[in-house]
Amino acid sequence: MTAIATLGSHCALQVLKGAKDEGLKTLLVCEKRRQRLYKRFDFIDEIIPVDSFLEVLEPRCARILEKNKAVLIPHGTLIAQMSSEQIESIKTPVFGNKWILRWESDRNLKEKLMRDAKLDVPKSIPNPDKIKRLTIAKRHGAAGGKGYFLTSSKKDYVKKRNQLIKIGLIKGDKDLYLQEYVMGVLAYLQFFYSPLDDNLEFFGVDKRHESDIEGLGRIPAQEQLGIDYISSFNVIGNSPMVLRESLLDDVYAMGERFVEASKRLVKPGMNGPFCIEGVYDQNGKFWTFEFSARIVAGTNIYMEGSPYSALIYDVPMSMGRRIAREVKIATKQRKIDIITT
Amino acid sequence: MTAIATLGSHCALQVLKGAKDEGLKTLLVCEKRRQRLYKRFDFIDEIIPVDSFLEVLEPRCARILEKNKAVLIPHGTLIAQMSSEQIESIKTPVFGNKWILRWESDRNLKEKLMRDAKLDVPKSIPNPDKIKRLTIAKRHGAAGGKGYFLTSSKKDYVKKRNQLIKIGLIKGDKDLYLQEYVMGVLAYLQFFYSPLDDNLEFFGVDKRHESDIEGLGRIPAQEQLGIDYISSFNVIGNSPMVLRESLLDDVYAMGERFVEASKRLVKPGMNGPFCIEGVYDQNGKFWTFEFSARIVAGTNIYMEGSPYSALIYDVPMSMGRRIAREVKIATKQRKIDIITT
Amino acid sequence: MTAIATLGSHCALQVLKGAKDEGLKTLLVCEKRRQRLYKRFDFIDEIIPVDSFLEVLEPRCARILEKNKAVLIPHGTLIAQMSSEQIESIKTPVFGNKWILRWESDRNLKEKLMRDAKLDVPKSIPNPDKIKRLTIAKRHGAAGGKGYFLTSSKKDYVKKRNQLIKIGLIKGDKDLYLQEYVMGVLAYLQFFYSPLDDNLEFFGVDKRHESDIEGLGRIPAQEQLGIDYISSFNVIGNSPMVLRESLLDDVYAMGERFVEASKRLVKPGMNGPFCIEGVYDQNGKFWTFEFSARIVAGTNIYMEGSPYSALIYDVPMSMGRRIAREVKIATKQRKIDIITT
Repeated sequence: MTAIATLGSHCALQVLKGAKDEGLKTLLVCEKRRQRLYKRFDFIDEIIPVDSFLEVLEPRCARILEKNKAVLIPHGTLIAQMSSEQIESIKTPVFGNKWILRWESDRNLKEKLMRDAKLDVPKSIPNPDKIKRLTIAKRHGAAGGKGYFLTSSKKDYVKKRNQLIKIGLIKGDKDLYLQEYVMGVLAYLQFFYSPLDDNLEFFGVDKRHESDIEGLGRIPAQEQLGIDYISSFNVIGNSPMVLRESLLDDVYAMGERFVEASKRLVKPGMNGPFCIEGVYDQNGKFWTFEFSARIVAGTNIYMEGSPYSALIYDVPMSMGRRIAREVKIATKQRKIDIITT
Repeated sequence: MTAIATLGSHCALQVLKGAKDEGLKTLLVCEKRRQRLYKRFDFIDEIIPVDSFLEVLEPRCARILEKNKAVLIPHGTLIAQMSSEQIESIKTPVFGNKWILRWESDRNLKEKLMRDAKLDVPKSIPNPDKIKRLTIAKRHGAAGGKGYFLTSSKKDYVKKRNQLIKIGLIKGDKDLYLQEYVMGVLAYLQFFYSPLDDNLEFFGVDKRHESDIEGLGRIPAQEQLGIDYISSFNVIGNSPMVLRESLLDDVYAMGERFVEASKRLVKPGMNGPFCIEGVYDQNGKFWTFEFSARIVAGTNIYMEGSPYSALIYDVPMSMGRRIAREVKIATKQRKIDIITT
Repeated sequence: MTAIATLGSHCALQVLKGAKDEGLKTLLVCEKRRQRLYKRFDFIDEIIPVDSFLEVLEPRCARILEKNKAVLIPHGTLIAQMSSEQIESIKTPVFGNKWILRWESDRNLKEKLMRDAKLDVPKSIPNPDKIKRLTIAKRHGAAGGKGYFLTSSKKDYVKKRNQLIKIGLIKGDKDLYLQEYVMGVLAYLQFFYSPLDDNLEFFGVDKRHESDIEGLGRIPAQEQLGIDYISSFNVIGNSPMVLRESLLDDVYAMGERFVEASKRLVKPGMNGPFCIEGVYDQNGKFWTFEFSARIVAGTNIYMEGSPYSALIYDVPMSMGRRIAREVKIATKQRKIDIITT
């Protein structure tokens, strides 16, 4: 029997609950300080306590996972806490494509993949001198939105950049990526692609709650003008959403182009869950500013399935459960090599 | 056996999934360019490909629907793409009341029905000279919110109107309807009225996500003041919501008054799903600014039922499924004439 | 057989539906003017019509409840309409701890309990002269957010206070509580603590929709500056949300400290449902500004269970149903005295 393993954070509860619903054994690689949380849930069969998630790379951990024939489900915490080299050196079979995770982390590779998939990406601004209109400055890597800020002139940019340097979040311009800011409805499009039957499923869409930018709209303009304010986009949580049905055809087309581009650029392609992240402008056009090449935390809102997964499955199908089901099917078909790397 | 048919857009997935859950045959009148999307879902039994939705009016389409004893479920796309005359000339039985759809499309009839139902409607502004306080300018018809804007003076109005003329969205003042803007919590109240047992069900409430106005609250006031901005209210999607329980009695009362008024003004009245759309002000008073006399897309968020439908039904009951159930019951009772026009 | 009783408002539908799902008899103490609403739902077995909720204190009502062996579920309406003395004098067994409701209503006791639980509470401002930065002025008691306002200077405070006096909402400074305003993502953390097995369950988190402050973010800054605006925070409804998983450990820790503190300060402690209410700042730190020592209305969004209750229970478990289940278990174990006061 195959087992499902993941790191204790991000979407571990969803992933392991889904695995248990599919009848698989569940293992959690868990920082010792977080054990109290995860011990509360009886769908977690075994906890592997570690001091650091990097121990996944060590023989002790790898042996336990191997003994259980575990597939490791990667998520945002894996990417945040390991280098691409470390991730690629993992011995345990990784669900999906571990090689594509480097493309998620590296801003240049990321843009290359998005453009190859013919996604519309907001224009990047090469340097602060070129800031002419509303621009967002983002830190490189999976920083979770902390230290991102809006600006519309070089003068204002310099002021805010210097404050971030002062509090130690960045070292200088090279730590920031500048991009034209597109205003509208933010949407995080969740997909699952199965190479077993070459089929793409649109799984749902969520909204993010980011602090403290979310609170800004509740401060009257008059009060705002009196505050020396730097926005921040620290992700706190997620809420459910559905899209206007006439947008769905394009949603599927974007997902399919992304799958095709990843097959061309980074073998074996974008297998398993992924997310295309962006904003619908006032014409209903979608601008992609990021992607995640693995399960996103926004799927946690759909622990019992989403309005879209309900169109496909007769049981409550979370993304975590969908992953486990894929592992089960591949195991049965002796195709586990196709869905892992 | 009766079948359920609808046009491929708006809430077609919900309607046909619900019909299938009730055991009915499902037909989709589908633009050829959209077939790829709908072929993904196996609860759609038959797709009738068309170049334009207007083909519903033609013998070929009507014959297929008749052969299947199909009831046609009208939604926003039907109203957006056909004139009231065309809708009224549909030969296929239309669920609910096709005559009331004219009252939804025509601003004057719409106001008449709302006032007859004793709904509180924000004051309309007769002409731009009368703009004294915060006012919303709306385009006539089911434009989906595109080109709507806020203004608080004639001077500002003229500037924005001229920009809309320039980009070809409107021709002049007569294409815009001016209404006092009420600030608060927007809410879209979804109802189902069954003439079979003269019973009204409150089915749920949703929030809309509109672009790009939704993004405005995330732009600091200082940056906003530097932008020459015209808001837009293009509906992108929906999220779930519940109301304070003490508001529910009034919600039901509004729904009942609407049903009664429609019985008086446009026979056979407001049968089936409808939506009362407005805003709760700071005193918890509801101001109605629109209604939809048929299923609204906001019900898509409740593909598996809403917190309110769960109080009434033991199975996951979407609005789409509720419609199908009504058709089933009426068929059994040989009362299909009562629930269609 | 035990029965579940509550007052007809706030979350009565959820509580009684949940009780019925657990197979218990349901009673509703209902104002006569609200009977029409509640008679629509057939999971309510018996309605006790009253002119005022205070009749719960009278022998007639108490006898009916006693005859049914009813446990009374307290909620926000009970607190809003009765004094602490009246609540404490209720003869019917009250679910949870009726003595702690005084600590919810009294601002000083409330702060004492929050600080004893080592929750981070935003600094209170002793008097209007001390307003230096963004501050929120709140009315005492369960006012539902009506008449709350933001201010950042004494001058502005005085102006807004005087307007509230003028419209009769307050009498003077002593009716207002001043607190530093923390900007970020508002979150209402719902818990259930069972003394039967000394176990805390995190049940879900919701967002509130408040009028008219929620509408502010859709008004361009330029228009805002032209309006003489006093914000209001009248709760209209709720929406679902999940938290970043890395925040959950701290969420549980806050809940446990709250349970422990209440055991020390107000016997028998915080049994049953409660809510810790606050805001996540840009560092992901949670600032508590309120608590509710009983079921909150935000649980209504989870009529069929929340993403978090789905991790614990195999059936759709609303907070109302969880309460009923606790009553059932305690009845079976002859421990009803432990879960009521």
